[in-house]
Amino acid sequence: MRPSERAPEQMRTITFTRHYTCHAEGSVLVEFGNTKVLCTATVEERLPAWLKGKGQGWVTAEYGMLPRSTGSRTPREAAKGKQGGRTMEIQRLIGRALRAIVDLEALGEYQITLDCDVIQADGGTRTASISGSYIALCDAISWLQKNRRLKKNPLHGQIASVSVGIYNGVPVLDLDYAEDSNAETDMNVVMNEAGQFIELQGTAEGHAFRRDELDAMLALAEKGIREIMQAQREVLEA
Amino acid sequence: MRPSERAPEQMRTITFTRHYTCHAEGSVLVEFGNTKVLCTATVEERLPAWLKGKGQGWVTAEYGMLPRSTGSRTPREAAKGKQGGRTMEIQRLIGRALRAIVDLEALGEYQITLDCDVIQADGGTRTASISGSYIALCDAISWLQKNRRLKKNPLHGQIASVSVGIYNGVPVLDLDYAEDSNAETDMNVVMNEAGQFIELQGTAEGHAFRRDELDAMLALAEKGIREIMQAQREVLEA
Amino acid sequence: MRPSERAPEQMRTITFTRHYTCHAEGSVLVEFGNTKVLCTATVEERLPAWLKGKGQGWVTAEYGMLPRSTGSRTPREAAKGKQGGRTMEIQRLIGRALRAIVDLEALGEYQITLDCDVIQADGGTRTASISGSYIALCDAISWLQKNRRLKKNPLHGQIASVSVGIYNGVPVLDLDYAEDSNAETDMNVVMNEAGQFIELQGTAEGHAFRRDELDAMLALAEKGIREIMQAQREVLEA
Amino acid sequence: MRPSERAPEQMRTITFTRHYTCHAEGSVLVEFGNTKVLCTATVEERLPAWLKGKGQGWVTAEYGMLPRSTGSRTPREAAKGKQGGRTMEIQRLIGRALRAIVDLEALGEYQITLDCDVIQADGGTRTASISGSYIALCDAISWLQKNRRLKKNPLHGQIASVSVGIYNGVPVLDLDYAEDSNAETDMNVVMNEAGQFIELQGTAEGHAFRRDELDAMLALAEKGIREIMQAQREVLEA
Amino acid sequence: MRPSERAPEQMRTITFTRHYTCHAEGSVLVEFGNTKVLCTATVEERLPAWLKGKGQGWVTAEYGMLPRSTGSRTPREAAKGKQGGRTMEIQRLIGRALRAIVDLEALGEYQITLDCDVIQADGGTRTASISGSYIALCDAISWLQKNRRLKKNPLHGQIASVSVGIYNGVPVLDLDYAEDSNAETDMNVVMNEAGQFIELQGTAEGHAFRRDELDAMLALAEKGIREIMQAQREVLEA
Amino acid sequence: MRPSERAPEQMRTITFTRHYTCHAEGSVLVEFGNTKVLCTATVEERLPAWLKGKGQGWVTAEYGMLPRSTGSRTPREAAKGKQGGRTMEIQRLIGRALRAIVDLEALGEYQITLDCDVIQADGGTRTASISGSYIALCDAISWLQKNRRLKKNPLHGQIASVSVGIYNGVPVLDLDYAEDSNAETDMNVVMNEAGQFIELQGTAEGHAFRRDELDAMLALAEKGIREIMQAQREVLEA
Repeated sequence: MRPSERAPEQMRTITFTRHYTCHAEGSVLVEFGNTKVLCTATVEERLPAWLKGKGQGWVTAEYGMLPRSTGSRTPREAAKGKQGGRTMEIQRLIGRALRAIVDLEALGEYQITLDCDVIQADGGTRTASISGSYIALCDAISWLQKNRRLKKNPLHGQIASVSVGIYNGVPVLDLDYAEDSNAETDMNVVMNEAGQFIELQGTAEGHAFRRDELDAMLALAEKGIREIMQAQREVLEA
Repeated sequence: MRPSERAPEQMRTITFTRHYTCHAEGSVLVEFGNTKVLCTATVEERLPAWLKGKGQGWVTAEYGMLPRSTGSRTPREAAKGKQGGRTMEIQRLIGRALRAIVDLEALGEYQITLDCDVIQADGGTRTASISGSYIALCDAISWLQKNRRLKKNPLHGQIASVSVGIYNGVPVLDLDYAEDSNAETDMNVVMNEAGQFIELQGTAEGHAFRRDELDAMLALAEKGIREIMQAQREVLEA
Repeated sequence: MRPSERAPEQMRTITFTRHYTCHAEGSVLVEFGNTKVLCTATVEERLPAWLKGKGQGWVTAEYGMLPRSTGSRTPREAAKGKQGGRTMEIQRLIGRALRAIVDLEALGEYQITLDCDVIQADGGTRTASISGSYIALCDAISWLQKNRRLKKNPLHGQIASVSVGIYNGVPVLDLDYAEDSNAETDMNVVMNEAGQFIELQGTAEGHAFRRDELDAMLALAEKGIREIMQAQREVLEA
Repeated sequence: MRPSERAPEQMRTITFTRHYTCHAEGSVLVEFGNTKVLCTATVEERLPAWLKGKGQGWVTAEYGMLPRSTGSRTPREAAKGKQGGRTMEIQRLIGRALRAIVDLEALGEYQITLDCDVIQADGGTRTASISGSYIALCDAISWLQKNRRLKKNPLHGQIASVSVGIYNGVPVLDLDYAEDSNAETDMNVVMNEAGQFIELQGTAEGHAFRRDELDAMLALAEKGIREIMQAQREVLEA
Repeated sequence: MRPSERAPEQMRTITFTRHYTCHAEGSVLVEFGNTKVLCTATVEERLPAWLKGKGQGWVTAEYGMLPRSTGSRTPREAAKGKQGGRTMEIQRLIGRALRAIVDLEALGEYQITLDCDVIQADGGTRTASISGSYIALCDAISWLQKNRRLKKNPLHGQIASVSVGIYNGVPVLDLDYAEDSNAETDMNVVMNEAGQFIELQGTAEGHAFRRDELDAMLALAEKGIREIMQAQREVLEA
Repeated sequence: MRPSERAPEQMRTITFTRHYTCHAEGSVLVEFGNTKVLCTATVEERLPAWLKGKGQGWVTAEYGMLPRSTGSRTPREAAKGKQGGRTMEIQRLIGRALRAIVDLEALGEYQITLDCDVIQADGGTRTASISGSYIALCDAISWLQKNRRLKKNPLHGQIASVSVGIYNGVPVLDLDYAEDSNAETDMNVVMNEAGQFIELQGTAEGHAFRRDELDAMLALAEKGIREIMQAQREVLEA
């Protein structure tokens, strides 16, 4: 039995709130149950030094947790003077996943930065961040198009992400914190609208996982991602 | 004429939303018009090294802005590897103001940390932070009392804060960003429920201000703080 | 009774020693009693990145304490790897106060940096720094004029600064360390030669201060600043 | 055709040189073709603060590249003042993978640190690091046993790691730098001796990968890991 | 001809001013011509972690330059966030030299920190720092003795230091900045009262130096150090 | 008797292995007995900012120790976030010594960086680094010549370095760790092929050293350096 009493293949309630804050070119509050992440997309006309003059743009991401988004207070990284390894790992993942659906040449010499800030954490913040950033990125690109800064749409795909794992020996979908901290295996999957893999990161926490467990988790992930994509399309068409 | 069309002595709409997030002992979203700050209070049983074994507690604050809480993106301090001077100045002010109404010996060996994170900025983030942190602090102390960790209530006052300034030669109350960035003088005032001063910080941005201008600003501040305190009492009694 | 046996409205002896060191364009040792601060002004033909090409100059300040300027040794900020919040707060205040009397466009594309280094501390180092930096700034601007680098004098005012406070219930002028560390209220005031306010920073340390206490402190500050300005004029005319 | 003219399922030559340096409790030079990594294991009687007094030990890893292990010089992280995101990601992966085969309670209050320093890089440094660290860890644990510091062997498995990818549309095993930098997909796999997964990290660089491609890559990884494990056993029995 | 018109074997005027500031246990302004360094000695009852409980004390040094002690402004190390290599090299040298004449066991569990802060630089700041720190250290140890904290005098020697070099092909004593920046060779020598070497650091800047040049420089150094030691004894006996 | 049973004037076995790694323009493993340092030379077409456009090149060095090159593990400087004072001192010495034999104008606008990374430490790592870097530098300059990037050879000398000291009252050559950590005096000498001094750094660890001891140490150093230079010439001619 899952702590949340969900069925193994049952997602938490997913909501996307667009235009959550007023300044950013894209601003989305994404909720996977009690996990709440604010994803903003910022368009700037400046590029990292190594990309200047190459006729292409860049998409990157930064991730942070508000100190008390977690059960006990997480020290503020700005006060510690550096971002931890987990933060770096997550923001590299988010940026990489989003670049997989953007034609950087078609984007032109713009940089789009996705800031994913966790307001409240209950497991799955990185997969929520990716799923929400997709909407924020869409809005930022629409903003560029409305302002006639792009010749063609640089977006060539849709992505979403979900976590799967083995909890008490059972493959389950969309782990919350109670499950995540006790799961034997935890896997984050990013897929595109064709059901292909963008990123796959599986870690055995308790014991190594078998091939059949991997297959079961992948099937759950595909189901979950289809549902998230449906929610993404609905909010974008709203 | 103020950009917002408010009268000179008119505050923006002030709202406090308690229990905004679920993990913290106190969690308040404070809004002064479009300025939105999440203030959380965390209770911990650990103290700064220099206070250990002295039989008293500590109240401190940290402040941060989400990168895109502002009109153009503010680089993330965690990524830059240090907190800037403005951040330090503000968080020192918030902590000092709150300590002014707490009997640290009555608090016992607990530390309460107020995290003020700006979700959306439109001027007055530090005065909103102080005003909202007061509520979060009340809730954290109630939590300690409910859990029978305190012998007596360490809170011995109420505080609130507002900004005043000279805009186009006219003293005005509660400046928003459009005013703040063009004000000739900007002053932040923290007062207690007896109308006494906890903190007064006035800066001539454009030209030096005269004594009569100071007096006019102080009168406006007193009026504004009375209104904020009324709102604080209402939400605490709700 | 004040620890120093001064009358409540009595300043410490103020001295300014110009040309204290030989390399800087302005170099002043300022003494407020036992507080000794070396203020140097450096003229450079480089500007912060965000000011380049805007046809104006910049005035900024940095502050530091020698490790053993204080009663017990203060760890060296260079060794700790960062400047603390107090340092940042003070150097931001010094820079802001000096910019209030400089026409940055008339200064042209020069940057003047005021370095305020505390040789010996006995309270009031920030107000001494501001009062001494004014002389160093005058000397730096004279140097620019003598070298025919300026078309017109960018200085359009005189500033000085002093601290006031409530000590044992009595408003007093120019607090030394023994008073400052026990004062109920501490206020730093920066004024110009017309008696107008440039900066006002009051903090209730022990208990909140009343409006009549504020008025008494402001009257003392005005008296003290008039005396410092007299001393400034004398040394500049020498 | 692969740049190295290897067949798709062909590994590079793998060698492990034990006792490569003289001070460490375990010291192994691992070579995957031209990739050379020095893996040392250090046993210490000190633990991270959060583990003290819990009656268990810890296994952790650090990773670094010599500045000119790469085609063009990589700036030294010690000189830059921080470890980059890639470094953090890799050293977290190595530590996690090794902990998967260690019973931390049986280890007692010892910390074993695996330092993986890349002498020469030609792709696959993280998988070589994991495969070599396994040998260094075995040697460190033998050292503890020889010195009668352990009651029972805390090692309960064998691990090895290899990379697989899609290069020019073809699934290939053990990518070198020429392939890695042009691969469409890159996946790092860590398995134990039972053929179960410890870690799986797949990234679509060029285009998303399909389920059948994933299956082909996993089959190659399993084959490669079997060969590495054979080499590990041979060198440990030597 | 030397720029200063001094004879090759002629020192600059050396002065030591004791009790230059009021808080430190030892406080000396040392002047070698226009080079002015404030050396303070601080006694503390805390030791570096690695020395605790070993029944001995420690002597260490820190060095800094005020930003405008030099001809053009040197950026403040506290603002840059780290001490440069030159600073580290110098402070390590000062500490090492002073430890050579202190019996650390006889010092007991005290740490003495010598802070050498350059007020005005004109060459030879490190040799002035060592020569001045010797006096400050004597005063700090006298302070410990007067306060009956020591059983016996831990000082067992006298040290002084001077620079020598080859300028325009001629060996010269006590280089000022004009010489130092053009010298072909620069050597810093620390000796004790018996004329033995504590430290010798010679660097060929322009061309390598011959053995006979080394011998000539050492003879000059010995002469200079004798003169400095005479001045040290006079000021200590005053 | 020396711990290694060497005669006082006996060097350890010296070997230089060229082309030790494949990417660098110069790559040498230098061994002084059990001390092993990898010295690589990197040629880049970029210069430090302060040298740009001056029509000359630059030679610089960086030094590091692998964490377990030493008897007990030395914390990784990249993880600590800064290079220590010893590292800075050594890398400054290496760079300075090599610049002494390079005509920087003849080098043109290239920077050559010598990275000296200690694989295994047994005393004398800095002198081994200098001696090995000389070979790596020769190879890098040959590479530039082969690629027709230089009009004339900028190398105008040969350097080598060795340590000497007083051990148990006897002057000895080429100290290993067992001697170095117990030596009364330790001196590092860098000489050129004419037997002239490039750098001389002597430190009294236990007691001050006399002039006759200095002379004896210099004679040993000259002998040792002649032998290292012979080995350098042999490997360069191979």
